[in-house]
Amino acid sequence: MPRSDGRANDALRACTITPHISLHAEGSCLVETGRTRVICTASVEDRVPPFMRNSGKGWVTAEYGMLPRATTTRVQRESTAGKVGGRTQEIQRLIGRSLRSVVEMPRLGERTIWIDCDVIQADGGTRTAAITGGFVAMVLAMRHMIENKQIKEIPVKDYLAATSVGVVAGVPMLDLAYDEDSNADVDMNVIRTGDGRFIEVQGTAEKEPFPRAVLDQLLDLGSKGIDELIAKQAAIVGDVLKVKVPTRA
Amino acid sequence: MPRSDGRANDALRACTITPHISLHAEGSCLVETGRTRVICTASVEDRVPPFMRNSGKGWVTAEYGMLPRATTTRVQRESTAGKVGGRTQEIQRLIGRSLRSVVEMPRLGERTIWIDCDVIQADGGTRTAAITGGFVAMVLAMRHMIENKQIKEIPVKDYLAATSVGVVAGVPMLDLAYDEDSNADVDMNVIRTGDGRFIEVQGTAEKEPFPRAVLDQLLDLGSKGIDELIAKQAAIVGDVLKVKVPTRA
Amino acid sequence: MPRSDGRANDALRACTITPHISLHAEGSCLVETGRTRVICTASVEDRVPPFMRNSGKGWVTAEYGMLPRATTTRVQRESTAGKVGGRTQEIQRLIGRSLRSVVEMPRLGERTIWIDCDVIQADGGTRTAAITGGFVAMVLAMRHMIENKQIKEIPVKDYLAATSVGVVAGVPMLDLAYDEDSNADVDMNVIRTGDGRFIEVQGTAEKEPFPRAVLDQLLDLGSKGIDELIAKQAAIVGDVLKVKVPTRA
Amino acid sequence: MPRSDGRANDALRACTITPHISLHAEGSCLVETGRTRVICTASVEDRVPPFMRNSGKGWVTAEYGMLPRATTTRVQRESTAGKVGGRTQEIQRLIGRSLRSVVEMPRLGERTIWIDCDVIQADGGTRTAAITGGFVAMVLAMRHMIENKQIKEIPVKDYLAATSVGVVAGVPMLDLAYDEDSNADVDMNVIRTGDGRFIEVQGTAEKEPFPRAVLDQLLDLGSKGIDELIAKQAAIVGDVLKVKVPTRA
Amino acid sequence: MPRSDGRANDALRACTITPHISLHAEGSCLVETGRTRVICTASVEDRVPPFMRNSGKGWVTAEYGMLPRATTTRVQRESTAGKVGGRTQEIQRLIGRSLRSVVEMPRLGERTIWIDCDVIQADGGTRTAAITGGFVAMVLAMRHMIENKQIKEIPVKDYLAATSVGVVAGVPMLDLAYDEDSNADVDMNVIRTGDGRFIEVQGTAEKEPFPRAVLDQLLDLGSKGIDELIAKQAAIVGDVLKVKVPTRA
Amino acid sequence: MPRSDGRANDALRACTITPHISLHAEGSCLVETGRTRVICTASVEDRVPPFMRNSGKGWVTAEYGMLPRATTTRVQRESTAGKVGGRTQEIQRLIGRSLRSVVEMPRLGERTIWIDCDVIQADGGTRTAAITGGFVAMVLAMRHMIENKQIKEIPVKDYLAATSVGVVAGVPMLDLAYDEDSNADVDMNVIRTGDGRFIEVQGTAEKEPFPRAVLDQLLDLGSKGIDELIAKQAAIVGDVLKVKVPTRA
Repeated sequence: MPRSDGRANDALRACTITPHISLHAEGSCLVETGRTRVICTASVEDRVPPFMRNSGKGWVTAEYGMLPRATTTRVQRESTAGKVGGRTQEIQRLIGRSLRSVVEMPRLGERTIWIDCDVIQADGGTRTAAITGGFVAMVLAMRHMIENKQIKEIPVKDYLAATSVGVVAGVPMLDLAYDEDSNADVDMNVIRTGDGRFIEVQGTAEKEPFPRAVLDQLLDLGSKGIDELIAKQAAIVGDVLKVKVPTRA
Repeated sequence: MPRSDGRANDALRACTITPHISLHAEGSCLVETGRTRVICTASVEDRVPPFMRNSGKGWVTAEYGMLPRATTTRVQRESTAGKVGGRTQEIQRLIGRSLRSVVEMPRLGERTIWIDCDVIQADGGTRTAAITGGFVAMVLAMRHMIENKQIKEIPVKDYLAATSVGVVAGVPMLDLAYDEDSNADVDMNVIRTGDGRFIEVQGTAEKEPFPRAVLDQLLDLGSKGIDELIAKQAAIVGDVLKVKVPTRA
Repeated sequence: MPRSDGRANDALRACTITPHISLHAEGSCLVETGRTRVICTASVEDRVPPFMRNSGKGWVTAEYGMLPRATTTRVQRESTAGKVGGRTQEIQRLIGRSLRSVVEMPRLGERTIWIDCDVIQADGGTRTAAITGGFVAMVLAMRHMIENKQIKEIPVKDYLAATSVGVVAGVPMLDLAYDEDSNADVDMNVIRTGDGRFIEVQGTAEKEPFPRAVLDQLLDLGSKGIDELIAKQAAIVGDVLKVKVPTRA
Repeated sequence: MPRSDGRANDALRACTITPHISLHAEGSCLVETGRTRVICTASVEDRVPPFMRNSGKGWVTAEYGMLPRATTTRVQRESTAGKVGGRTQEIQRLIGRSLRSVVEMPRLGERTIWIDCDVIQADGGTRTAAITGGFVAMVLAMRHMIENKQIKEIPVKDYLAATSVGVVAGVPMLDLAYDEDSNADVDMNVIRTGDGRFIEVQGTAEKEPFPRAVLDQLLDLGSKGIDELIAKQAAIVGDVLKVKVPTRA
Repeated sequence: MPRSDGRANDALRACTITPHISLHAEGSCLVETGRTRVICTASVEDRVPPFMRNSGKGWVTAEYGMLPRATTTRVQRESTAGKVGGRTQEIQRLIGRSLRSVVEMPRLGERTIWIDCDVIQADGGTRTAAITGGFVAMVLAMRHMIENKQIKEIPVKDYLAATSVGVVAGVPMLDLAYDEDSNADVDMNVIRTGDGRFIEVQGTAEKEPFPRAVLDQLLDLGSKGIDELIAKQAAIVGDVLKVKVPTRA
Repeated sequence: MPRSDGRANDALRACTITPHISLHAEGSCLVETGRTRVICTASVEDRVPPFMRNSGKGWVTAEYGMLPRATTTRVQRESTAGKVGGRTQEIQRLIGRSLRSVVEMPRLGERTIWIDCDVIQADGGTRTAAITGGFVAMVLAMRHMIENKQIKEIPVKDYLAATSVGVVAGVPMLDLAYDEDSNADVDMNVIRTGDGRFIEVQGTAEKEPFPRAVLDQLLDLGSKGIDELIAKQAAIVGDVLKVKVPTRA
């Protein structure tokens, strides 16, 4: 059974990362993964949250939103609902935690980088696209901080990208589109650094529990996709981020 | 004293309206007015709010949002704040009221058209751009309804567009950019139909009360700009909206 | 077609402003316009909002409320609803903005004057009555501040009053009562200083767009009414507010 | 030590109940107790809350509010705070519970009477004034229902009034004003029917626990005051409420 | 008519107070009254609320909660509802006020003791059990403060306990279980110190107003129960709280 | 480096599951894992959420709470904060999703089972204890439904339990206590059925990214612990849940 867009099971969707798409933000990019489109901006603020004050360390935090008609049917705005929903909070916690894991906070100084990931159009994989693009926006904001003489070097230890994998109709596949994701037996997000180590692995049996062997296959697929995504990140920020890029891609 | 972008005092900024920018929405466009960028989508729902039920009439309502980093400094999300701010509510009431004024509700049937106006980048004039673009998205959604055999004709009486005018450094000007708007003595929004009549006139003395003569000058400038904007709308929806376009433009 | 209370089309309803109706507030009055009754109090606080701190300037802000049974059918309290509605926020922003436009903030010192306008009974024109009465309460509070040796002079540049005008059954009229307002084709609020200049003009086509000539007629009617209202204000605060009163009234 | 206004320890403050002060409400009065002023309105709604549907019984519920400057220093609106405070909720539960205790709900039919008690000016005793006035507004609304042929008789079993008593500087006193209340050792609210039985007794040691003998004295004082208040109620609604009035007053 | 559990009308339900049931809290106990079970913890915080700062005095405050299935049918969490309900606020104000009445705040220093009363299982009398247990948790936390050298003596003037009494089927009874409470004509909470004086008396006619004689009977019953409860408290904290225990028990 | 309680690296803490601890709930248990204590109740409601109506299927949903002093320092109640925090929402979504994965919804009928997991005392591993105990409470509630003749068989496909694993000081360990968890390099939750397949795997690098080999070790440890936990579940519900129990335990 071929995929709806004819891709191979181990192929990413067409993915482009367009940097500098915001007039105002210190760092920004538009991530497009198939028909999913996410605007990522990074804003630098000269203070940290109360629990970090006087620590000498910086902080990175993320917020995630979706335009009401990014989806097939219109969804009520969370501002109108008066609260941020559980799914949104879970996603923004995941994005923030992932990006923080590769940043050396003492080298950032007592500053916060706010990563805003806003989904303009959704077709599956919005949270992993947000992480992949949020990383680029963050590094671009850091480059702006170097130009502003706020820091001297990019305080980032390694590349970081994310993708989704899953089992659809019994077959493990890379980078699920919405129609695949909504029919998946298993759905997994993989977040990994450039040196091949995991930051986060979240696998969920949507329909059927999955054995260890399937978990292994999914991790292989995810790693292949992440190598390719890091190559795209490196094409944009490789000049300032002096970290080795995985060679497989 | 020339304007920062060299325009004449009675000139609009470069304005483009790009239709069909959303995969999912029944009608959509991207409005760009200078550096201000607003995504407008129109979503059709097969029911009306409780106070309209069994009236046989339709409804048009609008929501307005802004990405946190659409502005020069990051603004907290209204979803995080837990409520929709006063400025936002005032704007979305204005957009909805304006669009409703040109729609013949009984011919729409008991359906709601939701107009979502999301500011991706702000540089002044976001609410008037939202009205101008919201009108286009709404008519495109109605065309989609005709194709779907939900309605037979576009139930719209006339074109509708909006622009801002103001007095800056003592000089009346058309279509203020943010740096002009934030220094204006008087700020006025004009919303007008194609046949030259007003839907809404909102003039505010930000610094100095203004005499009747200035009000007259501002209304003239606004009308000139609106004629030009309606010409742009007509280039997109003129094939389905059988209404005379003002000839001045 | 005569008006329901027999007035001429260019006549205000009977209007009385009763000062000092609050035991506790620094300034207060009860405004009665026909059957509309609004309690206005002005409270002086010895600090300003965070965004004004260390500016050396004062601030004036307004809040607007309505008793649940001020209206023909009972309306839910906004405290019970858990949020301040869009209409209320729009009105209190309008009142605050208008009053601030005639106050010289540096002469007020770093103090806030809170204007509370609470509608005890509603019969149309509550927001304009709130502005007319809020002005009186504010000046009375300033007189109290002079007695308290907080300031030396009333830091107010000019009188300020407001009224509504509109087109009902095709006829321009001054000071609409509720039954007129709810049937109006056009509804306009005019806010003007004593020297005849506008602070705010807000005209809305409720049913039918309106041509420029109608706008001109409505502005004339509004100005006539405002002159009469300022005469009533002057009878109360004219002893302390050394500003010329319009002579037409 | 005489009281600040010269009253005897067992004397009520001057109390007047002015009926029919609202244009719109089915029943209404203004209660003035000393300098405390409360507007009470009763609104009839032709349905009951969900938990009472299809019970054949009516419902009486109360809401209590205070204008921001009813008090010596301005208090934030509960609508602005976004929630109804604990004190307000406690008071409106007390008012509702008290009024319900004298109403025969099956004879009311499936209707709700909303009692709104809004404090225009506060000087102690607002909750008991609200109960005393709320009772009058409720009976007046029922009279309106008789005129409307919704019910045939006033479905009320007995008069109901309330007052506060307390121990100030060691001395039991009736009807505490704010300056007395804020210095009281013991504060008690007594709510009683015309036939001398209690609906609610709430005594609180604010500073010093109180022995049984003091409780007895306070109940005596409260009963004396309530008899006098019921006489004032009877002067207004005695023509329609065919219940014996306590003879002591 | 015997009681459902065979008790005499003047008998408490079996009541046990188990101290030190929390690993983390400075003071804690589990109160069981019949089938009602309440966990009480006391937490010491080294600061006071803003309105008490620089007063040199301490503060005691209480919060009350109920597990969703503590009751016969599941009740929605207040966190999910987004607000603390009126009943909960009324109860936590009552608990806090009662406990504060026996504490000498200057001897506590500028510290807050938070009393958390969480109902694990409800069968009537949860608020009075919370007061009785909250007192024990508070004194145990103070003992911990002595061990920590934060204070030298227990700053408590007297024992404090609470119980409910009521009239069921015409008969005055002590310590109502849920089935009794929900059928009671009169429901009263009595809160009293060890020396026999009242802190709070709250009697409510749920069905029928009650005469003075019944009030007297209920106060007698309540006092008997409170003496017995104080004896149970003294068995736990009598070694550190050097206050005379009522001898009747 | 031995563990603080002397356990082997592959040993669970002492774990007991006490069923039927709630008077009112259809199913309930207390789970104790070391010093972590969680009350789990299952409540049966005879309807499903709106999005499931008329589907013929049932629903299982979970809520998670924590007493304010379950933790080493007191945490503000979410009801007082006015909203359910991100961490809580993430946990309750995880619990609900996990339990739903083993239930055959059509056999449940249009009913909802609410699983409430309330942490009485926290010492690490509360979310996995909640899942392990929530499963037992759910099956007990289903047994109650069989007794009530609502269903004929337990509609559960397999056992389900959860535990945490992690890397502390470089060493993979099973079932982290709080002091271990707060110092972990990697933290992973494993949720698995009785037949050895995964429902959810969530691994997070708290400090250091982790290689594939460590992931494998952690999955082995988790599986060992889950087998032991399922044996404890089977001792309670094995009589009604006719599913094979893993033999390793």
